[in-house]
Amino acid sequence: MDLETLCKEIALMETPSREEEKRVLTFAEEIRGRVSRALESEGIEALVSLEGSLAKGTWLRNEPEIDIFIQLPTSYPRESLGKTILPIVKKSLNEFRSLERYAEHPYLELYAEDLRLNVVPCYRVRKGEWISATDRTPYHTEYVKSRLDDKLRRDVRLLKRFMKGIGVYGAEIKVGGFSGYLCELLTIYYGSFIDTLSAASNWKRTEFIDLEKHYADVKEAIKFFGSPLIVVDPVDKFRNVASSVRSEKKSLFTVAARAFLQNPKREFFYPKRVVPYDLPRLKSNVLKRGSAIIFIKFTKPNLVPDVLWGQLYKASRAVSSTLDRHGFKTLRKAVWSDEDKNHVLIFEIENMNLPPIKRHLGPPVFEAEDSKRFLTKHLNSESTLSGPTVEGDRWVVYTQRRYLDPVDLLEDKLKDGGRGIGVPEDLTEAMKDSREILVNMEVSAFYSSNPKFAEFLTDFITGRPRWLESTY
Amino acid sequence: MDLETLCKEIALMETPSREEEKRVLTFAEEIRGRVSRALESEGIEALVSLEGSLAKGTWLRNEPEIDIFIQLPTSYPRESLGKTILPIVKKSLNEFRSLERYAEHPYLELYAEDLRLNVVPCYRVRKGEWISATDRTPYHTEYVKSRLDDKLRRDVRLLKRFMKGIGVYGAEIKVGGFSGYLCELLTIYYGSFIDTLSAASNWKRTEFIDLEKHYADVKEAIKFFGSPLIVVDPVDKFRNVASSVRSEKKSLFTVAARAFLQNPKREFFYPKRVVPYDLPRLKSNVLKRGSAIIFIKFTKPNLVPDVLWGQLYKASRAVSSTLDRHGFKTLRKAVWSDEDKNHVLIFEIENMNLPPIKRHLGPPVFEAEDSKRFLTKHLNSESTLSGPTVEGDRWVVYTQRRYLDPVDLLEDKLKDGGRGIGVPEDLTEAMKDSREILVNMEVSAFYSSNPKFAEFLTDFITGRPRWLESTY
Repeated sequence: MDLETLCKEIALMETPSREEEKRVLTFAEEIRGRVSRALESEGIEALVSLEGSLAKGTWLRNEPEIDIFIQLPTSYPRESLGKTILPIVKKSLNEFRSLERYAEHPYLELYAEDLRLNVVPCYRVRKGEWISATDRTPYHTEYVKSRLDDKLRRDVRLLKRFMKGIGVYGAEIKVGGFSGYLCELLTIYYGSFIDTLSAASNWKRTEFIDLEKHYADVKEAIKFFGSPLIVVDPVDKFRNVASSVRSEKKSLFTVAARAFLQNPKREFFYPKRVVPYDLPRLKSNVLKRGSAIIFIKFTKPNLVPDVLWGQLYKASRAVSSTLDRHGFKTLRKAVWSDEDKNHVLIFEIENMNLPPIKRHLGPPVFEAEDSKRFLTKHLNSESTLSGPTVEGDRWVVYTQRRYLDPVDLLEDKLKDGGRGIGVPEDLTEAMKDSREILVNMEVSAFYSSNPKFAEFLTDFITGRPRWLESTY
Repeated sequence: MDLETLCKEIALMETPSREEEKRVLTFAEEIRGRVSRALESEGIEALVSLEGSLAKGTWLRNEPEIDIFIQLPTSYPRESLGKTILPIVKKSLNEFRSLERYAEHPYLELYAEDLRLNVVPCYRVRKGEWISATDRTPYHTEYVKSRLDDKLRRDVRLLKRFMKGIGVYGAEIKVGGFSGYLCELLTIYYGSFIDTLSAASNWKRTEFIDLEKHYADVKEAIKFFGSPLIVVDPVDKFRNVASSVRSEKKSLFTVAARAFLQNPKREFFYPKRVVPYDLPRLKSNVLKRGSAIIFIKFTKPNLVPDVLWGQLYKASRAVSSTLDRHGFKTLRKAVWSDEDKNHVLIFEIENMNLPPIKRHLGPPVFEAEDSKRFLTKHLNSESTLSGPTVEGDRWVVYTQRRYLDPVDLLEDKLKDGGRGIGVPEDLTEAMKDSREILVNMEVSAFYSSNPKFAEFLTDFITGRPRWLESTY
């Protein structure tokens, strides 16, 4: 399809209708007023403002998110943000279901009809004198509003939808992608949606974007930030707006942009749903690889999503390095969670069975004490198969491997919850009590009972961005 | 046993008897005279001299080696060394069986009764104005003779025997160890056999020995030579006498010296012979490792030992990196040869069977042309199992492995002789025509028929210096 026509069509679908705009803004203004009055009546001096995509006019149709910020004077005590301010807000909006969130910063999440509402306390500070993590937000809103016109707002929406479609949208830990603010800055910087994609197609190993020219010495700045993508915050020269973007997500954006410009298609914005393999197909796909896919399934009550995903990823790294250290080469890994009851760490390993023999590298021969200890340990050991001897300037011994089967290894290392191998504290109990370790088709019962997981696993096995299918 | 007593006993056994000394020196002098006269009668002006361990009085009892050097004027044409000089010598000593050798430099090897005789042409040059590789030898003889007394000669013999016993004696490529000249220099430098061992026990990653203090800046000199063991030649500051010593042999000397000083035993000088496993024992030892030992056996007529071993080692590296590149992890490797008809490359690999799936790393995503080529190749390929996708900033695809069995791989890569994987030219024909690839007990016929090979393989499987057994 023609690029212009397609963009017009998508923009039309993603721009909120007049009715939506009016309804949401009216509602937001009403909430803002209620919060403001509630605080006033408690004698708290605060500026309550509407921020975020709603204030900037860049939200996607049918996906509004209302961000209400409570800007407090700097004299206000920090511990009271959660203890005093949030309860007042909660009480004033008590007809809505609410959740207190404490990722880095306390805030309130409310569910009002079909709308999600965040109420966030922060400090009203001068630029650069930040006290809490969210004090920059009002400045972000102001900066973006001053730079956007209707055409750019349209293009921000296209970019957000494109990023959602290819799975790189969202700064939360689960995704590790591009925030809404980052989408706005990119659109402002490059001048349009298409120009952003063209630029991203040619992004190099390290990209440095500095809208307000805070840095004269770009090389020094790149060294300072040390990320593959650096977008200097216009309102704070010491902050990289893209610090949450993982290398993989930056890469995905580059390759998707390149593919889209070459062959513009709706699927980039609205990917087809994955149709899970039926069981026989799953089985044949798993078997023909000859690898072993290991699932560690466990349950764990409520953690804030950002905390949960952070810990799941950490646990995944801990397990995969344990597998690698014991000779089971991890080819790929993934984490799945319904953010509620079911969590699954997935590892595809090259070899299910290892031979008994393993190479064990000892100390350099010129370390006399270490050498002695090494010899004492291995020379008359039952498990020594060859050696000790020297190779280059190191001692080496060929010894009997302790774990020939990865499931034995994992059962052993996780029986106490996995603290010893680096599973984070919050997950160890669940690991200890509820874990199931499944290999290949042993996952089929859970697969059949959980369509979301089935989609995820099918996608994992395919292992290919969905838009890639028919592009080349 | 007491160190002093043991050393005395060994010295007694290794010092040639008066009769041997007289007989060998008389014979050497006779040969020297005959060579000298033969050249004179052909009108060639040359100084014929006795060099090497015989001239220095450091040969081991019953192992004399007579080195006769023909020192020619620098005006003599280089190509005539082999073409004119050697035939004259050969003719003058025609009652002996002789072999012309051309490793780096032409020389003649003769077998006279129970003695080996080398006749080596070189140039009579001033120090530093070397023309051929052997011009330094007369200076070496002179230097060593001026530094040794009877006590040091005794200690040189102890050191040589010790190094022979632990398998690090000899600068030839097969061994990659310590030359006789190097033994002499170490003894001179440290002052005695025992002091040499004490020092070697404490050798560090890099050792620098400069008897004549040629270098003021030791750091620079170490960088210049870049070896783990540097012994600056007293007669040539640009030559490292220890350049032939492989890291492993230096390490073995260190650890053996340490063990010997702690527990002095005859076995260090005279190791017990390896008793080959009988077949059932061989079988059980091979099986319990669970690895695969692969033998590439082939035949090849006459090559000078230094050339042969150089090429065998090169072929061994070529094969092992081919195995590694295709996912068969080489744990250990060795080369065996009778230097005549039978040559065997030995590889112990961790895994005999690999799973079909393999990870294939592609180009960085920011290389647009490479990315396109990679996608074109893998996106619709039959052998793609997962992907392509991105990991970090690289493309990656999981694809079907071509070789699941290492023997298939090797048969395929060696069917033309292995030129494509780096088997040296001189061996490719033999590789092509005569190779047999055997796994584990398939070697048993050859093992049973060749006791030397059986010893070697038993030693390989034990994989431990023989003196180590009962030391710790």
